[in-house]
Amino acid sequence: MIKQITRRARSSTTTYSMSNVEDTRIAVIMVGLPARGKSLIAQKVVRYLAWLSISAKAFNVGSYRRADTPQPTADFFDTKNTDGERLRHAAAEAAVADMIKWFNNDHGVVAILDATNSTKARRRWVKQRCDANNIETLYVESKCDQEELIMSNIMEVKTTSPDYKGQDPEAAAKDFRNRIRNYEKVYQTIDEDEKDLTYVKLIDVGGQVIINQIKDYLQSRVVYYLMNLHIKPRSIWLSRHGESNFNLEGKIGGDANISVRGEMYAKALPDLVASSVGPDQKLTVWTSTLKRTIQTARFLAASPKGYDKLEWKALDELDSGVCDGLTYQEIADRYPEDFRARDDDKYNYRYRGGESYRDVVIRLEPIIMELERSENIIIVTHQAVLRCIYAYYMNVPQEQSPWMEVPLHTLIKLTPRAYSTEEVRFKGNIPAVSTFRTKGSTAKHQ
Amino acid sequence: MIKQITRRARSSTTTYSMSNVEDTRIAVIMVGLPARGKSLIAQKVVRYLAWLSISAKAFNVGSYRRADTPQPTADFFDTKNTDGERLRHAAAEAAVADMIKWFNNDHGVVAILDATNSTKARRRWVKQRCDANNIETLYVESKCDQEELIMSNIMEVKTTSPDYKGQDPEAAAKDFRNRIRNYEKVYQTIDEDEKDLTYVKLIDVGGQVIINQIKDYLQSRVVYYLMNLHIKPRSIWLSRHGESNFNLEGKIGGDANISVRGEMYAKALPDLVASSVGPDQKLTVWTSTLKRTIQTARFLAASPKGYDKLEWKALDELDSGVCDGLTYQEIADRYPEDFRARDDDKYNYRYRGGESYRDVVIRLEPIIMELERSENIIIVTHQAVLRCIYAYYMNVPQEQSPWMEVPLHTLIKLTPRAYSTEEVRFKGNIPAVSTFRTKGSTAKHQ
Repeated sequence: MIKQITRRARSSTTTYSMSNVEDTRIAVIMVGLPARGKSLIAQKVVRYLAWLSISAKAFNVGSYRRADTPQPTADFFDTKNTDGERLRHAAAEAAVADMIKWFNNDHGVVAILDATNSTKARRRWVKQRCDANNIETLYVESKCDQEELIMSNIMEVKTTSPDYKGQDPEAAAKDFRNRIRNYEKVYQTIDEDEKDLTYVKLIDVGGQVIINQIKDYLQSRVVYYLMNLHIKPRSIWLSRHGESNFNLEGKIGGDANISVRGEMYAKALPDLVASSVGPDQKLTVWTSTLKRTIQTARFLAASPKGYDKLEWKALDELDSGVCDGLTYQEIADRYPEDFRARDDDKYNYRYRGGESYRDVVIRLEPIIMELERSENIIIVTHQAVLRCIYAYYMNVPQEQSPWMEVPLHTLIKLTPRAYSTEEVRFKGNIPAVSTFRTKGSTAKHQ
Repeated sequence: MIKQITRRARSSTTTYSMSNVEDTRIAVIMVGLPARGKSLIAQKVVRYLAWLSISAKAFNVGSYRRADTPQPTADFFDTKNTDGERLRHAAAEAAVADMIKWFNNDHGVVAILDATNSTKARRRWVKQRCDANNIETLYVESKCDQEELIMSNIMEVKTTSPDYKGQDPEAAAKDFRNRIRNYEKVYQTIDEDEKDLTYVKLIDVGGQVIINQIKDYLQSRVVYYLMNLHIKPRSIWLSRHGESNFNLEGKIGGDANISVRGEMYAKALPDLVASSVGPDQKLTVWTSTLKRTIQTARFLAASPKGYDKLEWKALDELDSGVCDGLTYQEIADRYPEDFRARDDDKYNYRYRGGESYRDVVIRLEPIIMELERSENIIIVTHQAVLRCIYAYYMNVPQEQSPWMEVPLHTLIKLTPRAYSTEEVRFKGNIPAVSTFRTKGSTAKHQ
């Protein structure tokens, strides 16, 4: 057996561990009653892997079922309903067939089968299909009896699921509870009979995690990520620092103070945040260790709410090495080849003695893990770092993320939902230069 | 709360996740009957963290107990033996006191309390001591009922433990079994009563892992490492590729073929390996993706033993960027500042457009994890990469590791033991140039 393991673009990047996965094919099989955060977990795993440049895709059995049965009532999920049973099995069959096709035709690495897979028989059936196609299986059971969390998931589903679109919310919630009851009648948790399976049980939102028979490196990475997840509702706020003196001069890097207008943004930030935080929500402020983010966040930390504050070196701006403190025009003059190389492949280009976006993603991984462990967080950081974090939450392809426009003096609120991440932007209404640079441009400001 | 989180030597290194730990203090409390691999686990965690430049230290209660009772018989461990009980508690007290002193005076980050801690009362007592000193506790229980593994640990202990030094092996093994029986009488596994504790249960050598209430990032990293461990006996063989044409010319980097003498080493390697592998031992060969390692390992892979073979990009030589293909003299001439900077801090120096040793350690982390998951492995790789892997196993400080001499045409066999890693070197007796360079030297060969 010869296994080629890939490291990308040798001279310009540091190897990332997760890229060593070429030959692996893993089907992550979700297990759990409705309203246990399965779809949220599935979506997160896909997003995390894509962010690390690993090919990943979720197959949601509900979506296949909706093709024939767009808005079923709870009765449809009663195992005594033979028509329902037949249609539900057909949907699972179609999803699994598409998943296997994706592995074979599109060089898929990690697929997530997002469904209840609530019986031992169903789980065996999925395993047989995967075994026959040389696909490893990793079962992920989300088990939770905390009424509060289940309720919050029910509220989420009834407002966001296409199954209940346009329906009376109260009736939807009631029907959904009946659907859960129908599943409870037949639900079998993963137990001793299944100890030959590779599985993870996430009990009460990661409070306890049971991991069984993990086989290889990529499985252990996925499990490590799952260990850090929780399914409590929360939001992440992102802001760049207020306009800095370097921004005014068109210089990159450095450790400049914020400008007069930057200071105005810093003062406006507490109200901007307060308008988008619920009255009882706790919030923690993260900044980099550079002056411009600390200055921008200082009124937040001093607000009557008394938010906790954390400074992270890992949130410092992309290190531009020998180009630190230069304008784009100076870089183009002094290092013309580098300037072009960066435009050609901005994600992988590493500044001499500095970093690439790919390097920044590597150093942000602990930040992402810590964010996954946390609840409400506001991050005041820098353009490149914010792009990488935003790309993670909004599933932006890595070749696009370095070119995204993220204006100064704008607060971005991201709220992970079961089926998407909701984004709201709050403009500070305080003017600032644009530091966005289009490909090829050396303009001081856009 | 302001928490400063450190990233090292900003312009010359990529941040490593594990360096973001300045304020964390974690006591890892081992739990388990004798012969469950606790000391091996403790030693490995310390070594892994040190390799990642995290301050870590193990406190072995047995060593404290030996100060008063160097070679106790099994009776000493009988709870009815009040003298034994008193002395054993005094040893635990001394170890915990030293551990707390280490956190406070030496800025310790992770301590391992290596003892049986086999009762709930003892575990509570340790927790109270740690709580009072703002030290987080992470209990790690090794639970194993596989007779074969326990026996192999008993054999290990009776031959390596100072408790049985100079004693008849049979008598030692018998006494040690009686000691285990005395512990079994009072042993309490971590259970529901202790669900407020942060703990990891490693059941049957990582076959199943139960993780409870992990609190922060560093805890989750330690747990991730523990998940990947096994305590089965095995060895790691390390070899550089056979002498290459670039070695002859004194050039670094590149992708040259092996020389005539390199070819002789490649042919000699299967016998060299065979002489140090047991008859029934399975072995897997890892190489980099560069020609000189693949050529060197090709007779191994083709041997009648039919070893499995894996090529890893992550095992490629340290990328010397713009200096790739140059001699040291050419580097000193063209990049005199860089040449000096590298000598000043070889571990952190990153070649322009290339890598530092620190970068290599980062990209080797998945290799280390995969090695921990594996059994017998022979790695044919490159000077810098071998230094980093060797440093991990032999606990070499990172500032020294880039200066270690690792001659060509030499096979190194490393065997992790409970109390140390055993090293044996096999000389190929085939001449080769020396590629070792002392500080300041630009000599083509030593």
